[in-house]
Amino acid sequence: MSDYRVVGKRIPKKDAIDKVTGKAQYINSMKLPGMLHAKILYSKYPHAKILNIDTSRAEKLYGVKAVLTGDRVPSIKFGFFKDNTPLKTGKVCSYRDEVAAVAAITPEIAEEAVDLIKVEYEELPGVFDPEQAMQEGAVLIHEANKTNVLKLPWALNIGDVDEARSNSDYVVKNRFKLTWVNHCCMGTSSAIADFDFQDNLTMYSITQIPYLAQRDFNDALESMGLKGKTRVIQATIGGGFGSKLDTYAYEYIVMLLAHRTRKPVKILFTREEEFFATSPRQPAIIDIEQGCSREGKLTFRNISMILDNGAYTSWGATTPSVMMMPISSLYRVPNVRYKAKCVYTNNTYSQAMRGYGNPQATFAIESQIDILAQEAGIDPMEFRLMNSNMPGDTTGQGFHLGTCGLKECIERVGEELQWKTSKKVAGRGIGMASLIHVGGGARIYKSDGCGTIIKVDDFGQVCVYTGSTDIGQGSETVIAQVVAEELGINVEDITVINNDTNVCPWDVGAHASRSTFIACNSAIGAAKKIRQQLLELASEALEANPDDLVAANRSIYVQGSPEKQIGIGKLLRGVHYKSGGQMLMAEYFYDPMNELLNKEFKGNTSMAYAFGTHGVEVEVDRETGKVEILRYVSAHDVGKAINPMLLEGQIYGGGMMGIGYALSEQLVLREGKVMNPTFRDYTMLTASDLMPMKSFIVETEDKNGPFGAKGIGEPGCVPSAPAIANAIYDAIGVRITELPITPEKILAALKEQENEK
Amino acid sequence: MSDYRVVGKRIPKKDAIDKVTGKAQYINSMKLPGMLHAKILYSKYPHAKILNIDTSRAEKLYGVKAVLTGDRVPSIKFGFFKDNTPLKTGKVCSYRDEVAAVAAITPEIAEEAVDLIKVEYEELPGVFDPEQAMQEGAVLIHEANKTNVLKLPWALNIGDVDEARSNSDYVVKNRFKLTWVNHCCMGTSSAIADFDFQDNLTMYSITQIPYLAQRDFNDALESMGLKGKTRVIQATIGGGFGSKLDTYAYEYIVMLLAHRTRKPVKILFTREEEFFATSPRQPAIIDIEQGCSREGKLTFRNISMILDNGAYTSWGATTPSVMMMPISSLYRVPNVRYKAKCVYTNNTYSQAMRGYGNPQATFAIESQIDILAQEAGIDPMEFRLMNSNMPGDTTGQGFHLGTCGLKECIERVGEELQWKTSKKVAGRGIGMASLIHVGGGARIYKSDGCGTIIKVDDFGQVCVYTGSTDIGQGSETVIAQVVAEELGINVEDITVINNDTNVCPWDVGAHASRSTFIACNSAIGAAKKIRQQLLELASEALEANPDDLVAANRSIYVQGSPEKQIGIGKLLRGVHYKSGGQMLMAEYFYDPMNELLNKEFKGNTSMAYAFGTHGVEVEVDRETGKVEILRYVSAHDVGKAINPMLLEGQIYGGGMMGIGYALSEQLVLREGKVMNPTFRDYTMLTASDLMPMKSFIVETEDKNGPFGAKGIGEPGCVPSAPAIANAIYDAIGVRITELPITPEKILAALKEQENEK
Repeated sequence: MSDYRVVGKRIPKKDAIDKVTGKAQYINSMKLPGMLHAKILYSKYPHAKILNIDTSRAEKLYGVKAVLTGDRVPSIKFGFFKDNTPLKTGKVCSYRDEVAAVAAITPEIAEEAVDLIKVEYEELPGVFDPEQAMQEGAVLIHEANKTNVLKLPWALNIGDVDEARSNSDYVVKNRFKLTWVNHCCMGTSSAIADFDFQDNLTMYSITQIPYLAQRDFNDALESMGLKGKTRVIQATIGGGFGSKLDTYAYEYIVMLLAHRTRKPVKILFTREEEFFATSPRQPAIIDIEQGCSREGKLTFRNISMILDNGAYTSWGATTPSVMMMPISSLYRVPNVRYKAKCVYTNNTYSQAMRGYGNPQATFAIESQIDILAQEAGIDPMEFRLMNSNMPGDTTGQGFHLGTCGLKECIERVGEELQWKTSKKVAGRGIGMASLIHVGGGARIYKSDGCGTIIKVDDFGQVCVYTGSTDIGQGSETVIAQVVAEELGINVEDITVINNDTNVCPWDVGAHASRSTFIACNSAIGAAKKIRQQLLELASEALEANPDDLVAANRSIYVQGSPEKQIGIGKLLRGVHYKSGGQMLMAEYFYDPMNELLNKEFKGNTSMAYAFGTHGVEVEVDRETGKVEILRYVSAHDVGKAINPMLLEGQIYGGGMMGIGYALSEQLVLREGKVMNPTFRDYTMLTASDLMPMKSFIVETEDKNGPFGAKGIGEPGCVPSAPAIANAIYDAIGVRITELPITPEKILAALKEQENEK
Repeated sequence: MSDYRVVGKRIPKKDAIDKVTGKAQYINSMKLPGMLHAKILYSKYPHAKILNIDTSRAEKLYGVKAVLTGDRVPSIKFGFFKDNTPLKTGKVCSYRDEVAAVAAITPEIAEEAVDLIKVEYEELPGVFDPEQAMQEGAVLIHEANKTNVLKLPWALNIGDVDEARSNSDYVVKNRFKLTWVNHCCMGTSSAIADFDFQDNLTMYSITQIPYLAQRDFNDALESMGLKGKTRVIQATIGGGFGSKLDTYAYEYIVMLLAHRTRKPVKILFTREEEFFATSPRQPAIIDIEQGCSREGKLTFRNISMILDNGAYTSWGATTPSVMMMPISSLYRVPNVRYKAKCVYTNNTYSQAMRGYGNPQATFAIESQIDILAQEAGIDPMEFRLMNSNMPGDTTGQGFHLGTCGLKECIERVGEELQWKTSKKVAGRGIGMASLIHVGGGARIYKSDGCGTIIKVDDFGQVCVYTGSTDIGQGSETVIAQVVAEELGINVEDITVINNDTNVCPWDVGAHASRSTFIACNSAIGAAKKIRQQLLELASEALEANPDDLVAANRSIYVQGSPEKQIGIGKLLRGVHYKSGGQMLMAEYFYDPMNELLNKEFKGNTSMAYAFGTHGVEVEVDRETGKVEILRYVSAHDVGKAINPMLLEGQIYGGGMMGIGYALSEQLVLREGKVMNPTFRDYTMLTASDLMPMKSFIVETEDKNGPFGAKGIGEPGCVPSAPAIANAIYDAIGVRITELPITPEKILAALKEQENEK
């Protein structure tokens, strides 16, 4: 199967050495001539009228170059609903609301100036619980809307749930609750805005969506009455995980400050700011009901959700559109009903995060699959196998599952956990959970495309310009691999250029696990054009039919007669160095034939779907409530592993993120205030928490994928929490329905279990 | 003729505002993290053995990070003959020889460290006169060569000069002498070398030849035993004029220092260094003989030259290949003989400079045309018209003159000077001189090509990546103009990217007045592909035949029915925002069908030839010898003026450079030492020296040119000196044959004139 030279190989990330040696350029270390530093004054209250802002003392401070408030700047609206502004006027709706901003010659002076700004507020009552916020007469966050419920159409109906329920032999109903978690990127939010004197903006950014951000920034320039255009240059990005799929107040603030001062202005969040002033994964209250027949066939799934939107709207409010995917299509389920409400509160507003709602939905679904299986008296693994999706299925939502390795994933994890043979040990348990995710792009925006340009020099060195953004996931490396494979050269012969909207072709962004699938398909399209030219040129030089030629090891060979060959560099120089000479370049834009969901939220949103199963063995200490993970096993249907090493990195990293979500991490908000804005108090898992992990790669070779590959960016974190919850239940017989599963929650549940006995 | 919307318009340079506001990034203001500063220790003697170098005190100085000498670095050879090394070992051959180099945390510390290096020399006798250097037993610069005469094949023979001489009615013979002049770029030489930990080099450079420099630097990396590759990023360039057509010791020195210290290392020449340690236009001794028939038809031209090469060899040694052009082809001349010798001396070594030998050759030819015309009793303007090249001619060297406006140029200048009607005023005189130059590229390297990539965004904003280098001449602007014209958009819709070998397609460099011709032809090639796609897409949208469509004002119209139109942005979004969407990109590589000169130096080196005539009226003060230019007139056959404003800038700037060469500028060397390394002593003309100048543009619409254009970068400076010398002769009857024509020389000649009377 794999006589590939480069694809499928464990090749180190191209950017690894730069990153470990400190050569990689993060915004942190960037310094432009004359650059100023920005700091933001945030709200003192979660909900309050702004009566007056006195910036006079701040303005007088030495080194302060500009102090901006909402009243002094053009009106800019941003965010998914355009319900947010860079600097608030009239009132504040959350603690992270930006009230004023300063640019000064040092960050310290800017900070001092922020402290000198006096704001008079009139405190307003707040609402922090989405269920309360939905009630009649609740405090309104955005009065003009007359309700806190966002006007969003999240509702999916497949088949007839009510009839299915009445025909089901077993029905279970539960409520699950999920809370805020932060992306915890190692690089904090940062940007540098720099205007030229024709009002063109260069934004040094760590965005995951350079072209959509460029469009947002261009809109803002228009709001500012400027005729210039934006160029987005991405610095090295210290982690994304969905946090950078939107533009934020801080970016517009440096833009406004840079235009006011006519100097480059930089902002760099502290870790504390990163915790309280960026947008986490959104909390959800999930009411779920599933039923099955006596034999264990799933009959229906009925879910309603309430999402805490916070005070403003980013893409977090659209996660229900992705949650529909596991709800409709994880296991064969003929009847599905889903509705979700996003509700404004005075909490922090939420955003996309790895899995984009999928981990929340899957926690509820897969926790309840175990409950339902138990109810029906069927082994949960058998239950899953019986209901497994199969290749060739079209799901109720309209997804065409060209390839589907779910059954193998479940079986592989079952084997590894010795599901059927292991003996029960007191306090120990095993559990599993599966996932479906888009693996072949996802048409969320009107385009799901990515462009590539390739140029080749006289010595066979290749530059690949891609729209794709590398946020640490390694897209640069896999793109280089597929191009090297096509052209018969090596990864080190390739430079990938992927950080400049002026230079790189368009791409919709690093989301939906799409980069490997989409960007590699795009790169292959361009590479095939170059390859074709190389073979045609070589066929003249070697007097052979192009179809008989092979590109490998920086040469073109005649198949079967490897002595008849010409080095690619020599071939290229021969073509170039003459009158009317040529050099090879090619461009390709790949946008898949996947579909935007229709008004009923149906359609084939992706060209391929990824599957996986995670399994875990835990030991629970009944005295302390502490959960120890003894083994963590996963199997993923990835289509084809272009680079198994990077792929394992994604799966292990995703797994750790999922385990943190399950057991440890949470952003604690009290009346809208983040109470634990430090790594110590947030208790993110670190290297010292690592447990034995093992991952199996299932290769189903999707015909739409680049060399058969499907996306794997998000799946790794999706099923961890339900697998762990199921294992805990297996270990001690208590079902925890709220994340994170802290020792306190386990002890409380054990106490309740005692009481019930 | 010109119903163009953008081409032919006086559009300001795109980079003008950045330059006047200080936003443009010169290397001077660039600062990379951890960057060190380099200084060079130059030789104390013009010719000496290096006995010992003691760097111990320099190394101990606080802040010094590396001290390099030739013995401590890998051997790197560079320059046209590979006869130069970054740091000299064994002996020094000129005052500018680099003996040691320092990298330190500030330029001041580096300078101090250089002063602390002790070098013991054994002085050797030097040779500073090329005629002496050619003599038997002369001191040898490069002993291994056994002669100071370079092994270069400069000899051209057309027809039979000896027979032609014997058949001529008039024959004149003269010797002309030319000296060193400096390019006087406002930006001094500078570079930053920066290695990553895989030994890849990023060179921030002001080169005019990014791709050839990249190749040189890659060769140096190989010499250093490194596997990395070079990326050349061009900073804003403060003038080129040919000075940056080679790589220099200082660039290899920062490369070596950067690799040694593992830090970015910057070098920035002082103005003094710029005068004594960079390569000027080379001096020449020209023996010239021409003859004509009784009617004034040129019968032959016989030239032999001695060029002072200096101690090492750069492209200055190849200027005879370009001098052959005016020698063979300025005016119709059936019999030509030319030979040139380049001779090593202990002087500074020379390099290309605007015109690349043409000003030197044309000074001799056109001064002598007046002498010959006078000998024959024919008015010099009539003489020129009678011998003028004509469209369709193929010259003796094999140049095909598709278009030739020389006759119009001569006539236009004659009219303006009232050549035939103006009355003689004592002390005043008029003179003229003409030129031929390559105007359609020049195949000097094996390729004369340039690549272009174009991408278009959803709003009709266009990025054009060109190999072409903007050294201030405005190539960015004219490229934007031709692309805007093709695509029906405006210059402000276009961003030109032209400064990065990773990003931009290959180009041979900014030389030979080729950028407008070659880079615009290349850009048009790519733009036409985009235009074709736009018209096809619009033909569907407008239900019209593509051939009936016009692109203008950011829209596509149906010809004759302008109400049937669609905005380009709207059209593009429609194509992009759908399943299987498309975005427009295109690439094109243009390499003309011009020829490398053959072994006899014959062939059609360029796709088009530029012509021009300069005329001048002078007043000479017989008491002081001062020459005042009363009027300066030029007419240039440019094919087509894509941007008349920039074109006039080139002509006026060239004229001032030519006038400085004629009257004022010279690098004074005494025994190899530059005696006047300051602007004050060098007496370059400045704005305060401006005189009334007028320029006429003759448009001959060359079919090979972009919109008919031919190159104009160099011609403006070519015929100034002979026109002025001829006018001085006309004014006071003395013939000055050596540049610059200083008051001293005029007074001496007047004295001789007196004595002869």
